[in-house]
Amino acid sequence: MPTLRIALAQDNPVVGDLDHNADLIRRAATASTAAGAHLLATGEHSLTGYPVEDLALRHSFVEASRERLERLAEEIAADGNGSLPVIVGYIDADGPIGSTTGHGVRNALALLQDGKVLFRYYKYHFPNYGVFDEERYFVEGHELHLARIGGVDVAFTICEDVWGGVPFAVAAEAGAGLVVNINASPYEQGKQDRRLAVVTERAAEVGAPIAYLNVVGGQDELVFDGGSMVVGADGRILSSARRFAPELLVTDIEAEAAKGGDIANHSSSAMSTILHVLSEEPATVETRIEPSHAPQLDRLEEIWEALRLGLGDYVRKNGFASVIFGLSGGIDSALTAVLARDAIGADKVHVVSMPSQYSSSHSLDDAADLAERCGLHYSVEAIQPIVDSYLAEIAISGLAVENLQARVRGSLLMALSNQHGHLVLAPGNKSEYAVGYSTIYGDAVGGFAPIKDVLKTLVYELATWRNAKARSLGETEPIPENTILKPPSAELRPDQKDSDSLPDYEVLDGILTGYVDGDAGREDLVAQGYPADVVDRVAGLVDRAEYKRRQSAPGTKITVKSFGRDRRLPITNKFRGKPS
Amino acid sequence: MPTLRIALAQDNPVVGDLDHNADLIRRAATASTAAGAHLLATGEHSLTGYPVEDLALRHSFVEASRERLERLAEEIAADGNGSLPVIVGYIDADGPIGSTTGHGVRNALALLQDGKVLFRYYKYHFPNYGVFDEERYFVEGHELHLARIGGVDVAFTICEDVWGGVPFAVAAEAGAGLVVNINASPYEQGKQDRRLAVVTERAAEVGAPIAYLNVVGGQDELVFDGGSMVVGADGRILSSARRFAPELLVTDIEAEAAKGGDIANHSSSAMSTILHVLSEEPATVETRIEPSHAPQLDRLEEIWEALRLGLGDYVRKNGFASVIFGLSGGIDSALTAVLARDAIGADKVHVVSMPSQYSSSHSLDDAADLAERCGLHYSVEAIQPIVDSYLAEIAISGLAVENLQARVRGSLLMALSNQHGHLVLAPGNKSEYAVGYSTIYGDAVGGFAPIKDVLKTLVYELATWRNAKARSLGETEPIPENTILKPPSAELRPDQKDSDSLPDYEVLDGILTGYVDGDAGREDLVAQGYPADVVDRVAGLVDRAEYKRRQSAPGTKITVKSFGRDRRLPITNKFRGKPS
Repeated sequence: MPTLRIALAQDNPVVGDLDHNADLIRRAATASTAAGAHLLATGEHSLTGYPVEDLALRHSFVEASRERLERLAEEIAADGNGSLPVIVGYIDADGPIGSTTGHGVRNALALLQDGKVLFRYYKYHFPNYGVFDEERYFVEGHELHLARIGGVDVAFTICEDVWGGVPFAVAAEAGAGLVVNINASPYEQGKQDRRLAVVTERAAEVGAPIAYLNVVGGQDELVFDGGSMVVGADGRILSSARRFAPELLVTDIEAEAAKGGDIANHSSSAMSTILHVLSEEPATVETRIEPSHAPQLDRLEEIWEALRLGLGDYVRKNGFASVIFGLSGGIDSALTAVLARDAIGADKVHVVSMPSQYSSSHSLDDAADLAERCGLHYSVEAIQPIVDSYLAEIAISGLAVENLQARVRGSLLMALSNQHGHLVLAPGNKSEYAVGYSTIYGDAVGGFAPIKDVLKTLVYELATWRNAKARSLGETEPIPENTILKPPSAELRPDQKDSDSLPDYEVLDGILTGYVDGDAGREDLVAQGYPADVVDRVAGLVDRAEYKRRQSAPGTKITVKSFGRDRRLPITNKFRGKPS
Repeated sequence: MPTLRIALAQDNPVVGDLDHNADLIRRAATASTAAGAHLLATGEHSLTGYPVEDLALRHSFVEASRERLERLAEEIAADGNGSLPVIVGYIDADGPIGSTTGHGVRNALALLQDGKVLFRYYKYHFPNYGVFDEERYFVEGHELHLARIGGVDVAFTICEDVWGGVPFAVAAEAGAGLVVNINASPYEQGKQDRRLAVVTERAAEVGAPIAYLNVVGGQDELVFDGGSMVVGADGRILSSARRFAPELLVTDIEAEAAKGGDIANHSSSAMSTILHVLSEEPATVETRIEPSHAPQLDRLEEIWEALRLGLGDYVRKNGFASVIFGLSGGIDSALTAVLARDAIGADKVHVVSMPSQYSSSHSLDDAADLAERCGLHYSVEAIQPIVDSYLAEIAISGLAVENLQARVRGSLLMALSNQHGHLVLAPGNKSEYAVGYSTIYGDAVGGFAPIKDVLKTLVYELATWRNAKARSLGETEPIPENTILKPPSAELRPDQKDSDSLPDYEVLDGILTGYVDGDAGREDLVAQGYPADVVDRVAGLVDRAEYKRRQSAPGTKITVKSFGRDRRLPITNKFRGKPS
């Protein structure tokens, strides 16, 4: 059997930064040539970044993508890597571009060699659920391309193709010896296991190894987690790349030799196949590379790394030098602080303690303690004189005064942001966003919400885990024990506790997991054992908070359904799901 | 030829309020029976409201829709209208419901008669562009149903079916004598002309009249504008309903008699047809009804009515008793005030003048003048002492102070909203939202932004038009002349003018119409005659303001591309569309 050395560039492209992304691909080509690879694959939309959303409807953008691809082919050749076949993901069009029907935009990959584009493949299956809108942009292709490289017929597919399966069935019919699947697949908990399962299934169906390549990096609410892998026809993982970090994964794959001739050129009902013969001579390698196998991450470390990369890339890719947010002494802002430190470094993290008359002294102490443990820029601003100046102007009471305190804090943070250029972070958690337990334009201010998709119970788990990790490394625990142990409180009125107005977080988060993540109805939740009155109350809170969420900052998706592109509900909505 | 009397119920359903919507349908059935109609059609999703967005992924919601439909059939019969065939739009499912592939949710209509569901039709074409995400939710049907009513074979279709055309071609093959098309088609400028054009084209293709029914009402950022019509095979408009208001449009239609037998039952490649014989006896009417023809609205009146209904329904359907916002003396808040008065009545409109040290005296005068002309609740709150209390706490300057003033105003409005239950309106216009010329959490606060999709030049046109309309009715002009004539200014620093930092609005709005609404690129705009440096500056401002828009309140869509569901762009985006 030929031994094909394939390089998978698990890189971190930036949406719209075609030059930067092209440089990443060029560097990967140079490294792959140096490593003696026979083929380099880069990710879905490695040239344009993913998802470009409505940029795909702009003629000028699609033209820029096409033009940059041609230029990249020449650059790779000029770099001395022209003989290496390089797979690049980009956006193409072969018909009129428009925002309604009849558009001809393509989610494409191209094989570049010798300064030229040898062929272009157009994705067949489109995800159009969850965060994905690909039916909005793209039309499918009906030609599967195979390249005979080192005597092996290699088929090329894109992302959802592996879930939908038709191009893999066609590749099997065509006798492919290896199928490459390039992805921009965003993280959510449990996703890597599901990917491995489908890749294994397809490998068995095709009877050939699958090279599964994913990108890494944060893009607004998404984080791409890498985890590229090569899986043998027998389901064995031949090699795997790290999660959440770039890597060039080079793997030697023993693959079935092509039968010879151009037997791969034929038509099935769904797709026709086209074979491009690059090299018939069976590929060999001088010395087999030791396959790399990335360590498995445990559940909480995986989530932490997702949050860290999501936040860090939002800051870096949007050009911010620093972040700022309020440090209350509570668990959410504490976790946000440690996360920000881990993501971008303590010196770029500014925290402000803004006590009011209802803030307990321990809160102020806990905030100062955490800032000191983590080495953050820390300041204290009193809000009471400002709150009093409002109260001198207008007559308000109760909830209006509670919210006012939060809004004074928000305005202070925004003023400091405007003055110094810090990105403001909103430290709210998923449970709060769900039930609207936050003040819009108050504690919800911010350009990014790092733990927006983290339920409160998971906030505690992560805090405990992060402290334990510090202990195991012989470092100071970043989060004061008191912050973890004390009952949560917004401290907007005397002796306020979250539990005054919300069910226990264990119960609340259980209901939210069903109602939000699982689209469960009232009856389903009652059948799961939750009291009907609590279910109705929580569901009502979730529904009524939709207007707040619509105006909330994006935050990293880690669950099957995050608030944002992933979950689209009307604000005006009278459905309550209970007997009327 | 038989003469069929058909009633089209152009109603205003509420999303998720199945009981309310069922009542509307029952009342329409009673009125149609009284009018001697042979058939009643109600709108797309007349039972559930449209769009229900991700409610369609909830098993409990789909079950509620199915169950309510069956009950509605019984209710209509119990009301004594059982013999009337009634077409109802709703959501159905005949397969597993889920958020990824394989779901079996249907955008459906049903024919109810004699307390039963006679048949269910599933929409064939789905809009998945602009504000629409129907591929996310629904799977298409492949059966076209015809009902022989009064000897005429009537085919039934839903909304996008008329644009895609396949079900109409199948109806033509089946020899339909009339095609009913039920819609929930949102307003945008010029849409009614495009609807008439496509309906006329289909009528000619089928060789039969088309009854086009649309709903009315506001739903978050959408407003449905009615304009139902019956168009003859020859393209003549037989009758038409008002825009922006409910109406039961009853029309006598001379239609070709069916050939007899069940010849309509056959299969084409795309869809099979099923004929249901309700009554063979050729329909007649005692006295022909005088067909109604709604008056044409001129361009500005049409836009005004769209904005008025969009705002009014947001307020009413979300249960607010009143609105509040800042009245600066400028044109945007002035237009918002008149619109709010027209939408919900002066007594429900609260406006607050919040002068700072940079506010000109004429601004305060103009605001007071407008409030008096319109009879609004008017108050004045000084912001300078509050601004000073912030400045005593933190050292900021320049833009940070400008924004702080806007945020103090925002916090005051939110405090009054929290105290009194008013809905806060954000009076920003489309030009401002486009280039980010507003303060997030400041003048941008609010639950609804009534003129969010109105370019600044159109704001002036509407103000002038509204004053002229008042004059023509012998009423006081609502907007002070000075508000219209003075140069626009944010008044956040001494002698500030919008023109200090932005191009003339004529130029700005021209570029925005191309760049935002038309997805034009830099080269396209330069080719249109705009200076390259101005294009680059405006495009850069638009791109960089994406994070603000993501957190903005919804507002009524009136253009081909509004900010919101309609336009989806990444925040993290380095594409600038110019040579690098």
